[in-house]
Amino acid sequence: MTSLARALALSALVSATAVTAAPGDSTAWDIVSGLTTEIGPRLAGSEAEARARDWAKARLTALGFSNVAIEPFTIKGYVRGEDRARLLAPYQQPLAITALGYSGTTPAKGIEGELVYFASFDALKAAPAGSLTGKIAYIDHAMKANQDGSGYGPYGNARRQGPAIAAQKGAIGVVIRSIGTDNHRNPHTGATNWPDGVKPIPAGAISNPDADNVARIAAKGQPMRLSLTLTGTITDKLPSGNVIGDLPGSNPSLPPILVACHLDSWDLGTGAIDDGAGCAIVTAAALRARASGPLVRTIRVLWAGTEELGGFGGEAYAKAHATQPHALAMESDFGADRVWNVKMKLAPANKALGDRIAASLASMGIVRATGETDGGTDVGPIIRDQKLAVIDLGQDGTRYFDLHHTPDDTLDKIDPVQLEQNVEAWARVLTILGNEAGPISGE
Amino acid sequence: MTSLARALALSALVSATAVTAAPGDSTAWDIVSGLTTEIGPRLAGSEAEARARDWAKARLTALGFSNVAIEPFTIKGYVRGEDRARLLAPYQQPLAITALGYSGTTPAKGIEGELVYFASFDALKAAPAGSLTGKIAYIDHAMKANQDGSGYGPYGNARRQGPAIAAQKGAIGVVIRSIGTDNHRNPHTGATNWPDGVKPIPAGAISNPDADNVARIAAKGQPMRLSLTLTGTITDKLPSGNVIGDLPGSNPSLPPILVACHLDSWDLGTGAIDDGAGCAIVTAAALRARASGPLVRTIRVLWAGTEELGGFGGEAYAKAHATQPHALAMESDFGADRVWNVKMKLAPANKALGDRIAASLASMGIVRATGETDGGTDVGPIIRDQKLAVIDLGQDGTRYFDLHHTPDDTLDKIDPVQLEQNVEAWARVLTILGNEAGPISGE
Repeated sequence: MTSLARALALSALVSATAVTAAPGDSTAWDIVSGLTTEIGPRLAGSEAEARARDWAKARLTALGFSNVAIEPFTIKGYVRGEDRARLLAPYQQPLAITALGYSGTTPAKGIEGELVYFASFDALKAAPAGSLTGKIAYIDHAMKANQDGSGYGPYGNARRQGPAIAAQKGAIGVVIRSIGTDNHRNPHTGATNWPDGVKPIPAGAISNPDADNVARIAAKGQPMRLSLTLTGTITDKLPSGNVIGDLPGSNPSLPPILVACHLDSWDLGTGAIDDGAGCAIVTAAALRARASGPLVRTIRVLWAGTEELGGFGGEAYAKAHATQPHALAMESDFGADRVWNVKMKLAPANKALGDRIAASLASMGIVRATGETDGGTDVGPIIRDQKLAVIDLGQDGTRYFDLHHTPDDTLDKIDPVQLEQNVEAWARVLTILGNEAGPISGE
Repeated sequence: MTSLARALALSALVSATAVTAAPGDSTAWDIVSGLTTEIGPRLAGSEAEARARDWAKARLTALGFSNVAIEPFTIKGYVRGEDRARLLAPYQQPLAITALGYSGTTPAKGIEGELVYFASFDALKAAPAGSLTGKIAYIDHAMKANQDGSGYGPYGNARRQGPAIAAQKGAIGVVIRSIGTDNHRNPHTGATNWPDGVKPIPAGAISNPDADNVARIAAKGQPMRLSLTLTGTITDKLPSGNVIGDLPGSNPSLPPILVACHLDSWDLGTGAIDDGAGCAIVTAAALRARASGPLVRTIRVLWAGTEELGGFGGEAYAKAHATQPHALAMESDFGADRVWNVKMKLAPANKALGDRIAASLASMGIVRATGETDGGTDVGPIIRDQKLAVIDLGQDGTRYFDLHHTPDDTLDKIDPVQLEQNVEAWARVLTILGNEAGPISGE
């Protein structure tokens, strides 16, 4: 129903005058459908992520990529256990909870403590030192949806930094309202960070409907008490790895264009929008660009491992390929909804190249935006190290944080029409870049 | 956002010419908010359902009802255990599953078996006798949403009858696609039935996104294998009970109007739309009708226990009150979205009464429908036994089966504007009925 309505509304976005037309091309859909159906959840460091690497290598090879390789590395990961929470007072309520990545570990029977309510991350930061000793901190603050996803930075601090701050003030555990914009009983997981010297404490996120309930209860002003069970463990030396493959250009001396996504996913969903879709988009677009005619410049795809726990794959790629010059890097890691804007970081000498790309995208209704871009987690390290040019195709993130890091990140959430619009936008950019024989540089 | 849009769109439905105007009346919202926040899940036969009875008695008393009483009874219930499922072949996929009420019990380590795919309930019925021996049956068939909820009958057969039919063909377990219209990772529970002589087998429902995945995998034609763990148990002699309260009319000799809802809920959500909303609507409407002026006829509210497991509360009420004549019965148990039509079962002598009610509802945009009605599960037995008149206010069920019997049945799903429209429609009906001194009869 809504899919049909969206298809009708968006059909205008897929230009009938595509420079790289490929009628009926189902490559992107086949990749994300295959990856979610045949592998499913691909937690970094897990056996499933290893199966996904083998799957990726076979698929890229079958699609005609060259030099397809798995580049292994090891990580400090998080192995999920049992996740449970129950409000004990003033009312009894089971709470839908997920452990955060790198949560500390409770005993199997859980921990109990007073639940101290903070209306926001800033309120937690303002709490006096030692004031949480022996207690469980709770951080509220419902995230708002923005098209550009810009809420994730500030709201996400509750997840990224909140647990460590609570621990430093003496808390024995921390629970946050999910960093998400939906109202389903699906909590949003994600990694938290522990600065050196801060001992991890159990840290979880409850769903928005549960958080609404906690807020109503907290407003009554009676003491709250929580039972919290999060038995997962931080585990060293787990296997991970990147998968790469090339579509060689006719001039091997030209530095390649790097297009990236990440292969790992959180374990709650099947990693459809985060980031199976990204791998589908960059791969299908690279093939479509090459199908438009011979390219002078090589396009390399990087399906990175262990993005979710902190960008291990991107760092590993930058290190492994430090001596190989690259020209420009791009990444798709914001779902499968339509591309609506583009940011570029190009050397002044590449102004005409950027204008040609912008003009091609403008004909699809994609606007050129100013503002900085680091390219994203998977390509950020190589961009940083080699001062690469960047093109950042911005996707519509209005509903991205309804699904992000939840059990609901499944294939049915992908709109094939919008997925195709992504492939077309990417293919246009890669066709222009792949035909650019002159130098491409970020500064 | 959508709430606001809906509020604007629906404000026209709440007539400015209400015969029983009560500006700012938040009684209904307060009931459903209180019940979901202070009690939450209220599984029939559980300690939480007992807490809910005490809560209900206190609330009805505080609201001014007379003769408020808990009428206890015992039930054969279902005590949930651990629910897990994992596809083992041809691909590994964890599946979001819930046990059905009255599921058989697996060992703690679960059972394993070949998963035999049936595209529908009818396909399962057509399977040869003995063909499922040692196997786990899977029943697909995605339910479609209808405004009148009419899909629930036929699609629901997969849940109500499917497990017993699979057991009779030798199955060691059964899994169905959820009887629901959403695409979230929240499976829909609900009771299944075992005819005499059929030994219960483990029976669960997976969410629609998981079912989509199973359908894609089944389409490949390779054998599927499932690990299924459902450790809950069927348990006898659990405590349950009804809660009743009266708003006495000026003429105690007139048989009362009975308005009902159910107090128990499934355990996955907090029972907001099923059926906290119903209790909120009938109770607030009864109070609003009385507030419109003195009524000649008593209105009795029944907050029934153990509806979900098979209408134990309604049967207990009919038995306990068999010798007390009633006039007419109504029930609200289809969520909190707007009333859009009305069906009536009235004696020919009550034609003018019915026409007056229909005219009052018509001014709110509520249409009069033909077709039969049994009044619903909680009032059905007393209607059957005493041949009562029935008025059935039909709610918009388009999104009801997105939420029904899932973890997502929480307060945030209730639109206050539509809830108020229900109260107003009910109050108009009850005001007319409560002022009717002449005989009211069903035939």
